Amino acid sequence: MPHIKLPEGVPGIRGPMQFRPETAKPLNDIVDILLRGPHSLSQGERELIGAYVSARNDCRYCHTIHGAIAAHHLEGNEDLVTCVKQDPENAEISPKLKALLAIAAKVQHSGKDVTTQDIERARNEGATDLEIHDTVLIAAVFCMCNRYVDGLATWAPDDLEFYRQRASIVATNGYAASTITPSVHAVAE
Amino acid sequence: MPHIKLPEGVPGIRGPMQFRPETAKPLNDIVDILLRGPHSLSQGERELIGAYVSARNDCRYCHTIHGAIAAHHLEGNEDLVTCVKQDPENAEISPKLKALLAIAAKVQHSGKDVTTQDIERARNEGATDLEIHDTVLIAAVFCMCNRYVDGLATWAPDDLEFYRQRASIVATNGYAASTITPSVHAVAE
Repeated sequence: MPHIKLPEGVPGIRGPMQFRPETAKPLNDIVDILLRGPHSLSQGERELIGAYVSARNDCRYCHTIHGAIAAHHLEGNEDLVTCVKQDPENAEISPKLKALLAIAAKVQHSGKDVTTQDIERARNEGATDLEIHDTVLIAAVFCMCNRYVDGLATWAPDDLEFYRQRASIVATNGYAASTITPSVHAVAE
Repeated sequence: MPHIKLPEGVPGIRGPMQFRPETAKPLNDIVDILLRGPHSLSQGERELIGAYVSARNDCRYCHTIHGAIAAHHLEGNEDLVTCVKQDPENAEISPKLKALLAIAAKVQHSGKDVTTQDIERARNEGATDLEIHDTVLIAAVFCMCNRYVDGLATWAPDDLEFYRQRASIVATNGYAASTITPSVHAVAE
């Protein structure tokens, strides 16, 4: 049961977002810009960074929904998403994304853990300053969202099909639009 | 030296914010709403939560600037701010704020650490659902900002007077306005 009174039947971060729409707006804006804005990293790659950090923070709602959104962008390849969450160095992803995920893992623990060697590795694999910046900020944003979701003990559905359907809505409409227009699940579950 | 090429002479989070203004806007919006919007917790109390979490994350730029902003709002009482950062249970603050800081400390490590007992304590001291929600989100937001600042190895000035002067500008104008209008320090240092 959530620690505060949240709208019933609204899972994960969407409960506190409905409770406090003033703060929901900039939160949705930042994920829309970082995960869906024009970029040299694909939407699937950026969602993988978020899902990976959320898995490291053991935030079930976040790593499941962002894993599902990543899979949606990656031709439905859920096995790849699972592999990235567990062992990115051995996943079928680019060397550049592996290097960026290594930076994200450092940020998940502490920003201070990122070394010049981590940055050099990413640069050697072709990462730009913007890609490094956005990887650090995506990892930091998910450290925030994971704490927000778990710190209020929000509800996370068990059914994977829920996340797949929600992923399709978010992938099509974006985060802000999907929050403003409640999905059928908000009522049905 | 920062891990990526940032504007020179711009300390802390303001360097990456100038590098990436698209993401700076929602970041400033969320702190303006959480730390400066109309609230039952004073601006000083809310800045104390941010400074405390930043101190626990050992983010020197963030805990020093937000500590200075907190002191600005608390009649210049820098000793109180130092005490809160180090040992809030023995600081001269309200029992409610102590209970909220205890929740913030849990969130700093992991959202999952927050217990029903932590929430009960805060409620028994008079905390509302909104105050609990905002404490969790403020703590989560600072876990993001601390990682953003340190994950890119940004520059933090040593001179405490810098932070006091900057605190006065931010306390007067707010976060978004202070970022859009560079202070003289951005040029001078």
